[in-house]
Amino acid sequence: MPPVALVVQKFGGTSVGNLERMRNVAERALRTQREGNKVVIIVSAMAGETNRLLGLAHEISSTPDMREMDALASTGEQVSAALVAMTIQSLGGKARSLLGHQVRVQTDGAFTKARIQSIDDSKLLQTVEDGFVAVVAGFQGVDAEGNITTLGRGGSDTTAVAIAAAIRADVCEIYTDVDGVYTTDPNICPSAKKINKISYEEMLELASLGAKVLQIRSVEVAMKYGVPVHVRSSFSDRSGTMVLDEEGLESVVVSGVAYDKGEAKVSLVGVADRPGVVAKIFGMLAEKNVSVDMIIQSQSRGGDSRTDVTFTVAKTDLPRVKDLLEESAKDVGATIDYDSEIVKVSIVGLGMRSHAGVAAKMFGMLAGEGINIQAISTSEIKISCIIASKYTELAVRTLHEGFGLDKGGSGDS
Amino acid sequence: MPPVALVVQKFGGTSVGNLERMRNVAERALRTQREGNKVVIIVSAMAGETNRLLGLAHEISSTPDMREMDALASTGEQVSAALVAMTIQSLGGKARSLLGHQVRVQTDGAFTKARIQSIDDSKLLQTVEDGFVAVVAGFQGVDAEGNITTLGRGGSDTTAVAIAAAIRADVCEIYTDVDGVYTTDPNICPSAKKINKISYEEMLELASLGAKVLQIRSVEVAMKYGVPVHVRSSFSDRSGTMVLDEEGLESVVVSGVAYDKGEAKVSLVGVADRPGVVAKIFGMLAEKNVSVDMIIQSQSRGGDSRTDVTFTVAKTDLPRVKDLLEESAKDVGATIDYDSEIVKVSIVGLGMRSHAGVAAKMFGMLAGEGINIQAISTSEIKISCIIASKYTELAVRTLHEGFGLDKGGSGDS
Repeated sequence: MPPVALVVQKFGGTSVGNLERMRNVAERALRTQREGNKVVIIVSAMAGETNRLLGLAHEISSTPDMREMDALASTGEQVSAALVAMTIQSLGGKARSLLGHQVRVQTDGAFTKARIQSIDDSKLLQTVEDGFVAVVAGFQGVDAEGNITTLGRGGSDTTAVAIAAAIRADVCEIYTDVDGVYTTDPNICPSAKKINKISYEEMLELASLGAKVLQIRSVEVAMKYGVPVHVRSSFSDRSGTMVLDEEGLESVVVSGVAYDKGEAKVSLVGVADRPGVVAKIFGMLAEKNVSVDMIIQSQSRGGDSRTDVTFTVAKTDLPRVKDLLEESAKDVGATIDYDSEIVKVSIVGLGMRSHAGVAAKMFGMLAGEGINIQAISTSEIKISCIIASKYTELAVRTLHEGFGLDKGGSGDS
Repeated sequence: MPPVALVVQKFGGTSVGNLERMRNVAERALRTQREGNKVVIIVSAMAGETNRLLGLAHEISSTPDMREMDALASTGEQVSAALVAMTIQSLGGKARSLLGHQVRVQTDGAFTKARIQSIDDSKLLQTVEDGFVAVVAGFQGVDAEGNITTLGRGGSDTTAVAIAAAIRADVCEIYTDVDGVYTTDPNICPSAKKINKISYEEMLELASLGAKVLQIRSVEVAMKYGVPVHVRSSFSDRSGTMVLDEEGLESVVVSGVAYDKGEAKVSLVGVADRPGVVAKIFGMLAEKNVSVDMIIQSQSRGGDSRTDVTFTVAKTDLPRVKDLLEESAKDVGATIDYDSEIVKVSIVGLGMRSHAGVAAKMFGMLAGEGINIQAISTSEIKISCIIASKYTELAVRTLHEGFGLDKGGSGDS
């Protein structure tokens, strides 16, 4: 790879977890600078610090004020940024910490989950132009009134990509404790392979489907602005996974297998099949901010005009869903069934767009292992199936091998 | 006292040292608000937090960068402000934290010891106008480029008084762990009495002379802008000491006795009595940032044209002074003598201006107890004597009683 001019590097909470690790971060930034690059680094709070601060807040109130939560939590990244800047200086380098209000990471006013609206590139560019490593506190911004905001958990990824977009960086490197994005979870499938290149679209699906390497919103921003993202290990110098525009990629049929155990299945059996009944149920759930993922409505049964409705929600929402449904189910004459022992297994790949029969192949592979599919949802580049969670490992390994991912690329045969 | 409209209250690190104490602070602020006042409170970092942060910095470097030190240390007050605001909310009140860059506490660029240049009163006034308790992070500001600065140790006192001046508050209450300013240190003189009212000038002298209740710079600001300061206990509701313009006071001859064990005495014996020799020595000390307090040059001795020079410096500077003098003393042909076993005992009072003979009376009292005076310095409203430190208690008690301070006012007889 030729030397690049402008590099953004993001280090998470584990990478800056203590002073010794900060030294590794500082050395890497300085090495990158010595290689002829201008360097901006984004740091998270020291591992555990954000939880310590939020713990204090929750001792005061079970529902602390969101504005004050952000003023409180943002100090974690501020401390990291100052300490990492000092560490770079102690190694003989030049560095300056920059906070959300100093770089002017302008966000909307949605405290604890703000969205970045703009970033002033002038201070950042001037800082690196003057030979400093710019050490930016991740996760934080300011709204139009100058109130401190935060971007939500994992928000430092988004800060990094947004800053890379603003200053038109040549690459945004995300340093993490794994060495890239894998074809599936290596913990349950030892033949999982590191993916060298993946498209934004595929990465977005994988992140949404339970792969936790990158925060979803950061991938959205990278895709929107075409920022090349390099996911790599902070413990080695090997290159990791490049997340790119699909034009730079050959479109493999299936590039990864993901699974998500975070959902639960709810079945309403014998719902009166009249217009508006089902809509009423989902309207009520939406009103209470319950996100419904997959929905299957069976054909109306002959004669009695009743139907069955099955859908999935986040397990964490299940207690709330139960409360809501117990009342209204009676109105619609249904009985309710809950199942938390499910998993959503998904395959993702750009090539699905042009290859027919991928879904049929997936269903066939699962059926071949005697695994019953309880629900299906698809998009242009992904297929997800709900199955019993006891089959998770078997299903993941079967799909991983069946689509040839253990051979370093998905087969088309 | 009639209800006042606009009250500034400052709480130090001990007063916000844990969540329970923050609750006391919150309750006091709300009580003040309920009594019909608009309330701005200034908070320090939780006790111990600033030292913890600076400790981290010093693990990285023995001379950490001042700009980064300020970015780091200022998080302590930010955490306090957010937590105290949450605590007020948890008690049903309205509160908003405000940071140095949000209130726009504009300072010069002298990191770790910045001086306030201006404060934007509009946000503060709007906040209290809207019924919120404004909870301001003390100790911090921003320079013209938006860099975070801090005001130095004890800087929250200065923030409080400067904000009180900016918003034309009716009073600035400084809450501390003692219930006011005393005629002398109650620990060594049990008959010490709380002073109900004292002038800025006297308070300034007392603060400079070792009384640690108020930071010196905060008294300077209060005097400059005529801010009435009320020093009082955070553990009781009794009124403490009002620091006021002298017009509101009867001018007692002596209002307090202070002592300071922080100085050491240096004597150069047998210095060549030529023009420029002494100037050279003090020039060299000034160049190395050593502050010299008192200087006594004895009469030139007959015949050999040599003189003795005695001066005092802070004990903490003594090692540096020794290094500097060892070399240059030879050049001027002097021998050097050091004495750390000294104390500076001072009397302060506006009435000295119009009353002759106060100094003579002080010297007489000390002589009456067999205490030798080694050096003297005076200003319009104070007289300081250097004596052997073993006489500290005896001297303080003698002067306290001799000037009638144990009777609740200095006698003129």
